[in-house]
Amino acid sequence: MNNRLMKLTAWLKSEDIDAAFITSPDNVFYLTGFRSDPHERLLGLAVFQEAEPFLICPGMEVNDAKNSGWSNEIIGYSDTDSPWAMVEERVKARLGKIQRWAVEKEHLNVERYEELLSRFEGAAFHSAEAILHELRMIKDSKEIALLRTACELADFAVQTGVNEIAEGKSEVDIIAAIEYEVKKKGVSGMSFDTMVLTGANAASPHGTPGQTKIKKGDLVLFDLGVIYEGYCSDITRTVAFGDVSAKQKEIYETVLKAEEAAVNAVKPGVLAKDLDLLARNIIGDAGYGDYFPHRLGHGLGIDVHEYPSMTATNELAIKPGMVFTIEPGIYVPGVAGVRIEDDVLVTDDGVEVLTKYPKTLQIIK
Amino acid sequence: MNNRLMKLTAWLKSEDIDAAFITSPDNVFYLTGFRSDPHERLLGLAVFQEAEPFLICPGMEVNDAKNSGWSNEIIGYSDTDSPWAMVEERVKARLGKIQRWAVEKEHLNVERYEELLSRFEGAAFHSAEAILHELRMIKDSKEIALLRTACELADFAVQTGVNEIAEGKSEVDIIAAIEYEVKKKGVSGMSFDTMVLTGANAASPHGTPGQTKIKKGDLVLFDLGVIYEGYCSDITRTVAFGDVSAKQKEIYETVLKAEEAAVNAVKPGVLAKDLDLLARNIIGDAGYGDYFPHRLGHGLGIDVHEYPSMTATNELAIKPGMVFTIEPGIYVPGVAGVRIEDDVLVTDDGVEVLTKYPKTLQIIK
Repeated sequence: MNNRLMKLTAWLKSEDIDAAFITSPDNVFYLTGFRSDPHERLLGLAVFQEAEPFLICPGMEVNDAKNSGWSNEIIGYSDTDSPWAMVEERVKARLGKIQRWAVEKEHLNVERYEELLSRFEGAAFHSAEAILHELRMIKDSKEIALLRTACELADFAVQTGVNEIAEGKSEVDIIAAIEYEVKKKGVSGMSFDTMVLTGANAASPHGTPGQTKIKKGDLVLFDLGVIYEGYCSDITRTVAFGDVSAKQKEIYETVLKAEEAAVNAVKPGVLAKDLDLLARNIIGDAGYGDYFPHRLGHGLGIDVHEYPSMTATNELAIKPGMVFTIEPGIYVPGVAGVRIEDDVLVTDDGVEVLTKYPKTLQIIK
Repeated sequence: MNNRLMKLTAWLKSEDIDAAFITSPDNVFYLTGFRSDPHERLLGLAVFQEAEPFLICPGMEVNDAKNSGWSNEIIGYSDTDSPWAMVEERVKARLGKIQRWAVEKEHLNVERYEELLSRFEGAAFHSAEAILHELRMIKDSKEIALLRTACELADFAVQTGVNEIAEGKSEVDIIAAIEYEVKKKGVSGMSFDTMVLTGANAASPHGTPGQTKIKKGDLVLFDLGVIYEGYCSDITRTVAFGDVSAKQKEIYETVLKAEEAAVNAVKPGVLAKDLDLLARNIIGDAGYGDYFPHRLGHGLGIDVHEYPSMTATNELAIKPGMVFTIEPGIYVPGVAGVRIEDDVLVTDDGVEVLTKYPKTLQIIK
C-alpha cells in the first residue's frame, strides 16, 4: 500500500470511520496512480481501515488500471452491469455493516449519495475532503518535480505566444500557435482553455478570446497552463505591443509591485490572507482597489484550482510543500487589463518561484 | 422569458414543485445563454413557477452574464461574500417557504445539497434532470445548426490529421497539427483530449496518445471533436498507413458494416437498444463479440456525453431532433484497434449524418 493510502487509512482509524468511497478522478489518481475520467460512468476507490482496498472502473479500463501500478483488487463492469450493486456486494463481503462512511462531499453528486444511502442504510456520511485537501495541499518531491516541469512548459508557452505577436494576428491565431508548440512537446492538454486577450477584451478578468486582431498600443494578456503527467501549471503575463500610454504603464507597474511584494513575503507561517491583503493594499493605495475583483490566488497540483485558497479572509498559515498562484490584476474598462501570475512553492525557509518568465514590462515592437 | 425557461416553469407547475435551483454550467448555459464555468465557485439559476428567476455568479462575471442576454436579476458576489446566504435571502423574499425543490441530482454535490437542506428546512428535493434531459435531448433548429458546423469542423480536423500521416511522425505531432489548424478557425476548444492512436496503442478503446511513431502497416485511429459556440462534435475514423494485414482489413470491414447498418436503421420510433444490438450482432456474428466492450454511442450537444445513452438495454424510442453518436469498435490486443464513429440527427422520417468524412478504408501510402 502506498504512502498516500496509508495516510488515508490512518485517518480513517483516527476518526473511527469504517471506510472511504472516493469517486473524483483527481483523488483516485492521487491515491492509486490510475488517471482516468469515465465521465458519467462510475469510477470508485473503496478504502478500509484494515481490509483490502478495491477500485471499480469501466471494464474497458481494467487493463489501464493494472498498468498504472494498482496491485489490489480491480472490479470492471460493462455498460449493462449495475456497478453500485457490485460495490455493495464487495463492501459487505469485507465489513458486513458500515456505520460511518467518508465521501467527497464537494464532488459526490446527490444521485450517487442516494445510492449509498439506500444500500448502506443507517450509515453516517462524513467529508473525506478534510483529509484529502490536507494531503494534497502538501506536495511531495515527486509532485514538485512534475510541477517544475509543468511550469517550465508554461514559460515556454508564454515565450511562444510573445514571439507570435504581430500586426494582423488575432487572439485565436496566437492561441493556436502556442498550443501547437506545446503539444509537439508531448503535453496532453492545457490546464484550462488558453487565454490570449488584447485591448478591451483584456479588461475583463475572465474574458473570452476571439477573432480580435492585435494592434499597436494594445496590452496583450496571456493566461495559460499545461498539464504535465497529470500536474497543472498556471501563468499569466501581460506585455505591450508597441508604445502604450502612461496610464497603462502605471497600471502595469502597480500590478507588478503588488505581485512581487506578495511573492517575496511567502514563507512558512505567513497567513494566506496576509499575502492577499499585502497585494490588495498596494493596489488600493494606488487608487485601483475597485478594479481588483478577485482573490490573490489558488493552490494548484492535479487540479488547476485546489487548496489553499488565497483570499483576504483565509487564516491558514502556509507550510513548506504548498504550491499556489499569486496573481493580482487590475481591470479598468476602456483603459487596460493587466494581470501577472506566478506559481510558487513554499520552501523550508521561503519561496521558490516555479514560473520564471520575465516580469518587467516587455514592449514588442 | 425564453422558450426553454418557459418549458421548465411549465414543468414546475405540472409537478407542483416550487422552484428549481440549477447549478451545472451546461444547464445554466442552456437555460440562460450565459456560458461560464466558475470552477469551485457557485453559479446558480433559481427558477420559480411565477416569480422572477435570478442568476447568481461571481461578481467579476456579472457583465459577461448581462452581455450574454440574460435580462432578469443577476446577483454578483465577491470571494469574501457568502453566496448561499444571498441565495437564501432572495429565494425567501420571493416565496417565503419552499416545500419542494428541483435540483440536478446528477450534478449537485453533497456539500451544496447540505447547504440547501439546512437553509430550506423540511423541503423535499426532486430531480430536475428528468425534465432537463428531456428538453436537451431534442435539439431545436438553432442547436442543430451549431452541431452541423461543429461536425464540419470535426471532418476538417480528421482530414488535417490524415494529411499529417508520415513516417517518423508521432501521435502527439499529429494531434498538435490538428488542434493548430482547428483553433486557427476560431474554435475555442476540443470536446475532449484529441486522440490519435497507432499500432498497439489503438487496440485499447481508451488509449492515451504519446510519442509512439507511426510506421508502415499500422492502423491509425483518430477520435476527436470540436466545441463550436458551446456545442460538441465527436468523430472517429481509422485509416491505414501503408498496406495492412488481411486480419486488420477484416476487422475494419466488420466495424464498418456494423456502423453503417446502425446508421441506416435510425428513424423515429426505433428503440435505442435495437440500434446497439443491430451493430453488436454483426460484430458478434463475425466472431468479435468479446472485442466490442462498450455501448454503441451517446447523445451529444452542449456536453459531449449526454442523453440518449445508446446501450443494449435502453428501451427509449428515438425521436426527431435527437443527436447521438454511433461508434462501434473492435479492439484485439496485438492485432488491431478499429472504431468508426458518426454523429447522427434523427429527422422526421429517418436520419441525417452530420459527420461526413469518408468511411471506406483509406490506405495512406
